Amino acid sequence: MTNGKTKILEDMASTEFRKYGYELVDWIADYLDNIEDYSVLPKTEIGEIKNSLPDQPPKSGESFETILSDFDKKIMPGITHWNHPNFMAYFNSTSSGPGILADLLSAGLNINGMSWHTCPSATELEEVTLNWLAQMLGIPVKFWGIIYDTASMSSLHAVAAAREQAKELFINGEELSQSNYSQLRIYCSEQAHFSIDKCALTLGINKEGIRKIPVDKEFRMIPEKLSEAVKQDRKNGWLPFCVVATVGTTSTTSVDPVKEIATICKKEKIWLHVDAAYAGTAAIIPEMRWIFDGIENVDSIVVNPHKWMFTPIDLSAFYTSKPEMLKQAFSLSAEYLQSSSDEKVTNYMDYGIQLGRRFRSLKLWFIIKYFGVNGIRNRIREHIRLAKKFADWIDNNDDFERMAPVHFGVVCFRAVPKNISDDQSLRENELNKLNEKLLNKINSSDKLFLSHTVLNNKYTIRISISGIRTLEKNVKDAQLIIQNKLSEILT
Amino acid sequence: MTNGKTKILEDMASTEFRKYGYELVDWIADYLDNIEDYSVLPKTEIGEIKNSLPDQPPKSGESFETILSDFDKKIMPGITHWNHPNFMAYFNSTSSGPGILADLLSAGLNINGMSWHTCPSATELEEVTLNWLAQMLGIPVKFWGIIYDTASMSSLHAVAAAREQAKELFINGEELSQSNYSQLRIYCSEQAHFSIDKCALTLGINKEGIRKIPVDKEFRMIPEKLSEAVKQDRKNGWLPFCVVATVGTTSTTSVDPVKEIATICKKEKIWLHVDAAYAGTAAIIPEMRWIFDGIENVDSIVVNPHKWMFTPIDLSAFYTSKPEMLKQAFSLSAEYLQSSSDEKVTNYMDYGIQLGRRFRSLKLWFIIKYFGVNGIRNRIREHIRLAKKFADWIDNNDDFERMAPVHFGVVCFRAVPKNISDDQSLRENELNKLNEKLLNKINSSDKLFLSHTVLNNKYTIRISISGIRTLEKNVKDAQLIIQNKLSEILT
Repeated sequence: MTNGKTKILEDMASTEFRKYGYELVDWIADYLDNIEDYSVLPKTEIGEIKNSLPDQPPKSGESFETILSDFDKKIMPGITHWNHPNFMAYFNSTSSGPGILADLLSAGLNINGMSWHTCPSATELEEVTLNWLAQMLGIPVKFWGIIYDTASMSSLHAVAAAREQAKELFINGEELSQSNYSQLRIYCSEQAHFSIDKCALTLGINKEGIRKIPVDKEFRMIPEKLSEAVKQDRKNGWLPFCVVATVGTTSTTSVDPVKEIATICKKEKIWLHVDAAYAGTAAIIPEMRWIFDGIENVDSIVVNPHKWMFTPIDLSAFYTSKPEMLKQAFSLSAEYLQSSSDEKVTNYMDYGIQLGRRFRSLKLWFIIKYFGVNGIRNRIREHIRLAKKFADWIDNNDDFERMAPVHFGVVCFRAVPKNISDDQSLRENELNKLNEKLLNKINSSDKLFLSHTVLNNKYTIRISISGIRTLEKNVKDAQLIIQNKLSEILT
Repeated sequence: MTNGKTKILEDMASTEFRKYGYELVDWIADYLDNIEDYSVLPKTEIGEIKNSLPDQPPKSGESFETILSDFDKKIMPGITHWNHPNFMAYFNSTSSGPGILADLLSAGLNINGMSWHTCPSATELEEVTLNWLAQMLGIPVKFWGIIYDTASMSSLHAVAAAREQAKELFINGEELSQSNYSQLRIYCSEQAHFSIDKCALTLGINKEGIRKIPVDKEFRMIPEKLSEAVKQDRKNGWLPFCVVATVGTTSTTSVDPVKEIATICKKEKIWLHVDAAYAGTAAIIPEMRWIFDGIENVDSIVVNPHKWMFTPIDLSAFYTSKPEMLKQAFSLSAEYLQSSSDEKVTNYMDYGIQLGRRFRSLKLWFIIKYFGVNGIRNRIREHIRLAKKFADWIDNNDDFERMAPVHFGVVCFRAVPKNISDDQSLRENELNKLNEKLLNKINSSDKLFLSHTVLNNKYTIRISISGIRTLEKNVKDAQLIIQNKLSEILT
């Protein structure tokens, strides 16, 4: 097996794999130990990384040493440090030790869990870990789970299942006379994530088929407005088939009233999907369980452990009480994939677009086992505590104002210093410019990365506290930087 | 930073990460060194893995030692060993050392390459590596690349871009009077992968909107039949908008005549997508470049490095000469994701459904650099040589017959022993039963995993030689097992 001929045709020798494997483990340990020495955002110019790399692939192989050294010299300078405790932009995903090690093992095994037969452990561990996670979140046992890659894909599958249900309902009710989707209408709040629009367009729903429901002062969907919209639309020939409620919207983390929306959807026979990609994890804490009030009456839910449960990207957990609709929409197969066990097992490939399926449940299993339910609870609880502390600081600071309620790890705020015009229209314009400038200054500090949104035409800065390495001291540092940068602008 | 309070809220300590990181590196090295000691297919019963695991998640965290020991005891027994050199079923994906280590690094960094701003290196390395791969495959420079997770998703994006182009063409040509997709028709051969049907249904094309074109004796789409179908469909009010040609079909790895099909598509203004998910990699070898003859005239191509380029699952490379159509179909954004660099850079999130994007280009870069173009060429070339040798063995063996031409690493064959009925109808039925029995016996041997297909109603066994650990001796072993199992049945 080790003659000259075959040697050059095999994989990297195991001695070499061990050597560089250790080296990379050390590299990651050192990186995470010293991550605060890095600028959160890289200082790279557009095209700089690309220009530092050869135009052509190497003809002969390079040593692993060269590869690692090239990585350090050429790739590291352009890395945005998502694992940095001061990365507080967007919904900041961070990866934990047990999650990183599980992904290493998953790459080593390289199984493809498309069907039970192609890896029984992958299918059954997915069933077990999703059942565990459901218990942790208070999702009732009647819900069936599957892991997709991203929340965009989870929501796409939800809306596709909703479309499948609509086909059945409409065909039975003889409402749909022709096989087209131009009459279908989907509803979500003005604050819903834009991935919902993407899903709908992908599935062949028209832009006109997406109706945005107004929100209240706390950015929550107004159920009465939904109810009115559905009634009005039915009169005008639309076929309402899906509502997406959001638990933790992206801009402000507002929580749509799921219970009231579910009542409307039940009555109207409309599929209700709950996008809890970011905030769903908070339901692990008993005192936050209210966010899922009414969840037993929805049709599907998405929660992303890769957002706020320290799981390396990507892992999106999707639950539905109507898996048969999902299966009906996606269960196509071919002779070359069939096996004798098919009738008796779950073949996850029958419930989605993607045939290839990485061993993602492994990292969910490692993380839940390593931290335990209480360990995850403590971390989530601490993030919420830190966010509320930050909000208090904003509320007690004359230079700033808070722009939305704080439920989870995100605080929306803006600077409102005293020397701003009193004229209302001038004032808002000035404030928008000032806050944009402030955010740019903060993000150029190397020490902190925040993001922004616009709320009622007001430029709003967002801080998101949900990284596993983010501690009280990091939040205090953030306050100092924000205050200092504002002072710099004002003087 | 290390007081009692914060300690329990942080990640695994780096000393622990190092210790268990080394241990897992060793575990993988040992596993791959001794992989032939494992049964390719596990002997687990349905539900056995699930039943061995607790019904409830652990309240308190467990030691990493317990996790690894549970993994060994409870998960390993249900693993199908995709990295085993005798896993010769489906298109067998295998992961190489440099690919595994790159995935470890990717999980450690945990960046999300949704836009340039969120990780410049991820965006620019994706551009560079896809450019390298295009050069290796002979894909012209006018093609623009993006990495998706799976071929199913690459093809979904292709068909969505085709639909977008159709909208424009039809609106300009005033052929499409209403905004529905019920008139759209997509074409592929009878031998195309079922993911094409899934894509079409997902996108809102009806089942009737998918037309299968007949194949010739070598399982290749017949261009004249396509041409006729398109003309006939136009007369009947259909709007032909997309053709999918396959380079390396799943059952037999037949190669559709891309050049002739492209000529038809150009003339008819139909988007041509080439599904070369498995076989595309072969174009890296100069003498196999013919498979992409005419590629300069197609609209999109998918090639999966995770299938035959030793890349851990998942990584699907997608190229299109019309990225503007893809962008038009998927470019929706929101205030909370905008940054000042947006106008000047590639934001990959604008070209697809998924917003979250793992750092996949890193493993492509590691693999191309480590093996070099020649190293990858040698390995692919050797697999093809071994497959042709296996085919010779079949051709020279009176007990078997070959069922399709061999171009790549796959050989289709069946047993045709002498003592089978001469009556043609009885004969085929007997042969089907015999070959199904033979495959079951082979797969129960623990030593070899093959899969099957059905060709012209004939049950056909498939052997796929494309694993990085598969050497000549493994193919010889396979021959021995196949022959012995047949003898066992016959005596």
